[in-house]
Amino acid sequence: MSDLHVLTRKLFRKNDSKIVLFVADGLGGLPLEPGGKTELESAHTPNLDALTFTGTLGLSVPVLPGITPGSGPGHLGLFGYDPLKYNIGRGVLEALGIDFELGPQDVAIRGNFCTVDENGNITDRRAGRIASEIGAKLCEKLDSIEIPDVEVFVRPVREHRLVIVFRAEGLRGEVDDTDPQQTGVPPLDPIARDKDSNPTANICKQFLKQAAELLKVDHPANLLMMRGIAKRPEIPTCGDLYGLRAAAIAVYPMYRGLARLVGMHVLDAGSTMDDQIGQLEEVWNDYDFFFIHFKYTDATGEDGDFEAKVARIEEIDAVMPRITSLKPDVLIVTGDHSTPSKLRSHSWHPVPVLLVADSCRPDQCSSFGENQCLNGGLGQFKSKYLMSFALAHSGRFEKFGA
Amino acid sequence: MSDLHVLTRKLFRKNDSKIVLFVADGLGGLPLEPGGKTELESAHTPNLDALTFTGTLGLSVPVLPGITPGSGPGHLGLFGYDPLKYNIGRGVLEALGIDFELGPQDVAIRGNFCTVDENGNITDRRAGRIASEIGAKLCEKLDSIEIPDVEVFVRPVREHRLVIVFRAEGLRGEVDDTDPQQTGVPPLDPIARDKDSNPTANICKQFLKQAAELLKVDHPANLLMMRGIAKRPEIPTCGDLYGLRAAAIAVYPMYRGLARLVGMHVLDAGSTMDDQIGQLEEVWNDYDFFFIHFKYTDATGEDGDFEAKVARIEEIDAVMPRITSLKPDVLIVTGDHSTPSKLRSHSWHPVPVLLVADSCRPDQCSSFGENQCLNGGLGQFKSKYLMSFALAHSGRFEKFGA
Repeated sequence: MSDLHVLTRKLFRKNDSKIVLFVADGLGGLPLEPGGKTELESAHTPNLDALTFTGTLGLSVPVLPGITPGSGPGHLGLFGYDPLKYNIGRGVLEALGIDFELGPQDVAIRGNFCTVDENGNITDRRAGRIASEIGAKLCEKLDSIEIPDVEVFVRPVREHRLVIVFRAEGLRGEVDDTDPQQTGVPPLDPIARDKDSNPTANICKQFLKQAAELLKVDHPANLLMMRGIAKRPEIPTCGDLYGLRAAAIAVYPMYRGLARLVGMHVLDAGSTMDDQIGQLEEVWNDYDFFFIHFKYTDATGEDGDFEAKVARIEEIDAVMPRITSLKPDVLIVTGDHSTPSKLRSHSWHPVPVLLVADSCRPDQCSSFGENQCLNGGLGQFKSKYLMSFALAHSGRFEKFGA
Repeated sequence: MSDLHVLTRKLFRKNDSKIVLFVADGLGGLPLEPGGKTELESAHTPNLDALTFTGTLGLSVPVLPGITPGSGPGHLGLFGYDPLKYNIGRGVLEALGIDFELGPQDVAIRGNFCTVDENGNITDRRAGRIASEIGAKLCEKLDSIEIPDVEVFVRPVREHRLVIVFRAEGLRGEVDDTDPQQTGVPPLDPIARDKDSNPTANICKQFLKQAAELLKVDHPANLLMMRGIAKRPEIPTCGDLYGLRAAAIAVYPMYRGLARLVGMHVLDAGSTMDDQIGQLEEVWNDYDFFFIHFKYTDATGEDGDFEAKVARIEEIDAVMPRITSLKPDVLIVTGDHSTPSKLRSHSWHPVPVLLVADSCRPDQCSSFGENQCLNGGLGQFKSKYLMSFALAHSGRFEKFGA
């Protein structure tokens, strides 16, 4: 546990305040041309802009300068965890996201069904994106695989994606992916990165051998690859660290899984933003902290669709009045990382932050955008401190020292 | 010792330069309404504003983002110590502040006389703020308490406040306060937080039992409570770390105590700012570094009196010409933390810093205020680096590395 958590655990106090953390995934962007505006700056956001008058802006750095985070590190930072200390494997996230109850001994793996030709070379890394029902049936078949002294669980996610969990005493998770990230070659062997992970690598091999046999009649899903082989990390909950009863209102499995990992209560979020805000309104009295996750700013950024990302940001702006009418003591609108549509991928650029509370020291900013954030009162800060700001502004921290 | 100190100790060189650190306690503030000005921004400060022309502005973060410091951590930061590494108990500060010579074995305690009713419940946590002479007499009485194998010292501070020191081999200081921070309940027991502190907790119990007996005729001061039970920390001096002959010109005991703890020579400061500046002028040739502490910006902030805090800031502005006419090589005006009158308490907001030296790289700022500081050349930085800036600008650092 880091110094920061020693401090938060010691200083937190409980009260009746409400904190809303609205995460627009991949919010930060870039202009398409020098001198132009970013997606956030291009969007018409009268509600967010009005909030900058009472709020404070800033830019958060998810991991370290120049480092592009995945969704796991990005969100851990926002929840106040140093992403360099708590490394969460993809397999673990996927398992949590389908409500699989991971035990402390479990090793979880994200699987992808794929297509291989007669030489064993991969021709499609997603097996033609088979329908979810087909994937589910194949998983049922694989769930019957038996490995001595190991409990094996195989669960479908959606389409070609699945989760494999090995449960046995003393397993470690340091094993390389078998997905070669390209076609025309066979899958890689699962290689242990340390000696203690050799048993896990051997279990992976046995599983893959049996799976190949079972799947050979199931073209196009006639094989599978493994990614993000990992053990569930030991991670303190946000109840322990901050004294918060926290709720997550997220549609996508990975974000639900992340929230569950840090001890949030994961609510039924429906499938639209309207559903999500409706859920927020419904449970408003039951929690102290609300994490709302909106995926589509990232998805449109990854598609390289500048205009679509702008439109998604305007969708967020449109629901702000519903959130502010609940009168949260602290409202934060930010992202877990930047996803500039110009780059079609996550990026390392600092992430715009808007924090609104009565105790804000207002800055000179008048609209919510990257350039304005650069002059914001929060400055540029590591995103792991965002939660400290939230707790401070909600009166949930005691003074440190006499 | 932190990395920073390894460096300062290795790099410092001595010269004839003079550094003045003027600490306006709780200087940072907030506007009463969004769009308004802070106390510092509202104050008429022609002298400070003029100094921004040659100087550089910035904002310091005393501990970590979102963390509100007490006076101890706030000042340690300004003196170049990481407040997370050097935790100074309230009792230790109080003892140092009344010139009590704490030994390395001593456990020091801040005591408060209080009033209890016939059921032992506290009715006044400050015993009606008894006169200092009465408090002194009661301390004399308590000083007679005898505990086997322990030297006991009881000394008055002022009004209902006192200091208790236990001197014995191997005592530890991890014992909880007995002040319940509320009335209508009895004082708490002194509970050891670790096994090694059990002997100290037992000594506290024996002392409190005898004190109760002695004080029962002294209504309204018919009992006492203990706070900030702590051992003196091992802390390197500013002579060791920076090669400075440092003087403190502070009126209030706690700040005198803090300065003494880091090896400053604590001077007779009189009781007014005029006395303090007079003392500065008098000893100008005898020291390299001068810490001047002004309490009333914090006191007015804690009173929630915006206008009074503005007036106190204008008082500071008025003495600047007397300080600058001494021609310090480096003049710093800052606070140990923010105390916005809007919040009536210390806060986590970054603290305005004005640093004036010939070697400043001027920024575009033209007045001393929080918003200008946001655009200042020092940026936002941890206050533990302020001393490094002072040493650098006074030519007291060698180059690091070849």
